[in-house]
Amino acid sequence: MRNVILTIEYDGTDYAGWQIQPNGKSIQETVQKAIAEITGEPDIGLIGSGRTDAGVHAREQVANFKTRSTIPAADLVHAINTKLPEDIAVIDADDAPEDFHARYSAKWKMYRYTILNRPVRSPMRRRDALFIRKPLDVDAMRAAAQRLVGEHDFAAFQSKPNGKPTVRTIRLSGIEQTGPEINVYLAANGFLYNMVRAIVGTLLEVGHGKRTPESITDLIASADRSAAGPTAPPQGLCLMEVKY
Amino acid sequence: MRNVILTIEYDGTDYAGWQIQPNGKSIQETVQKAIAEITGEPDIGLIGSGRTDAGVHAREQVANFKTRSTIPAADLVHAINTKLPEDIAVIDADDAPEDFHARYSAKWKMYRYTILNRPVRSPMRRRDALFIRKPLDVDAMRAAAQRLVGEHDFAAFQSKPNGKPTVRTIRLSGIEQTGPEINVYLAANGFLYNMVRAIVGTLLEVGHGKRTPESITDLIASADRSAAGPTAPPQGLCLMEVKY
Repeated sequence: MRNVILTIEYDGTDYAGWQIQPNGKSIQETVQKAIAEITGEPDIGLIGSGRTDAGVHAREQVANFKTRSTIPAADLVHAINTKLPEDIAVIDADDAPEDFHARYSAKWKMYRYTILNRPVRSPMRRRDALFIRKPLDVDAMRAAAQRLVGEHDFAAFQSKPNGKPTVRTIRLSGIEQTGPEINVYLAANGFLYNMVRAIVGTLLEVGHGKRTPESITDLIASADRSAAGPTAPPQGLCLMEVKY
Repeated sequence: MRNVILTIEYDGTDYAGWQIQPNGKSIQETVQKAIAEITGEPDIGLIGSGRTDAGVHAREQVANFKTRSTIPAADLVHAINTKLPEDIAVIDADDAPEDFHARYSAKWKMYRYTILNRPVRSPMRRRDALFIRKPLDVDAMRAAAQRLVGEHDFAAFQSKPNGKPTVRTIRLSGIEQTGPEINVYLAANGFLYNMVRAIVGTLLEVGHGKRTPESITDLIASADRSAAGPTAPPQGLCLMEVKY
């Protein structure tokens, strides 16, 4: 059966997250319905590269679905978009090998977390950045972020442990600053539940001088979620890329 | 009487524009009400540097008001913000000379118009950029923009002529491109009604090869609004700075 891969951008502000929820509107369900309207197949099973939480955005979420439709991939982009609301868009579509699976085939993913560090909140950035009033020590945050790189047990940054393995490899952990905007970039072969937001909550404590960059190493070793910082709010988080 | 100057940022998406309207929610009215709640003076007359239309944004709109309040300017920022919705914020406040007038004292203003030029619409940028699918010739647009610089009669770019003078001086007219994002910057000692959006509508015709950069000179000389391009939609427009 034909296997189609989609790249999807969304503003997650008004959604309960990627995954279909009993209560609340999900990205997955909204896209599935749009596809079904185009292909005429009601039971499209859309597989995402992973869940994004309520309020989290994506520049390039990747998903795949099986179909008997013969609509060329390039035409699917615009056809599906006519059925999607303005806060979700398919930005690319392609035919994939039959065994391609958006979740299992993913090699690594990159997230960005955006912080706006200035004296007053920003109306223009309220949907895609976390506002932090107190000036942050970005050099300290950068030094802390560096300590996350490599293969570690990241249990200290996992909400709701589920007994599954918690070792992951972070291949990029860096911070870019442009004026008041601070972007934390994290790329890994996989992320535990709420891992990026727990890392950012911890980096913010470093930025506020509440913990040292060096303490990150001991924190990882502790595997103790209660020893890390709080989970940062969702609006600053964006799934940027999934690599296969 | 004390004269207070405010710098205001807003996401204009859900407003009928800056100016108080008989129907529809305005920025001016919303900020006036917030000030009145803080100072206890119900009849605050808030003077803006100029109107922005429905759906147009501001990073730094400037406004002033007279008050008997003795609240220090720095405290006014946070006090007023507690009374404002999340899509409007006062980002600075200062005491001004008694004769300072946000509109009449303005020397020049800078606007930015943002275009997103890529194959598919962007959910994350739908509120602050105009989506254009067909690739634009940005070099041609830049050459056209250059021809606007200087003192000219800009009647060709004015909607709803009102018999008042139409000569203005554009001191900066340039284009910056970063990936799919194209920003048109225009700074002038004043702008006619819908002038930036009419200019952008015309530059887009240049970008689509429908008119030449050289034709801009004749277009200005014609003073004929019907000879220029259409008024570009509001969401790409943002008032960036007012200089006094």
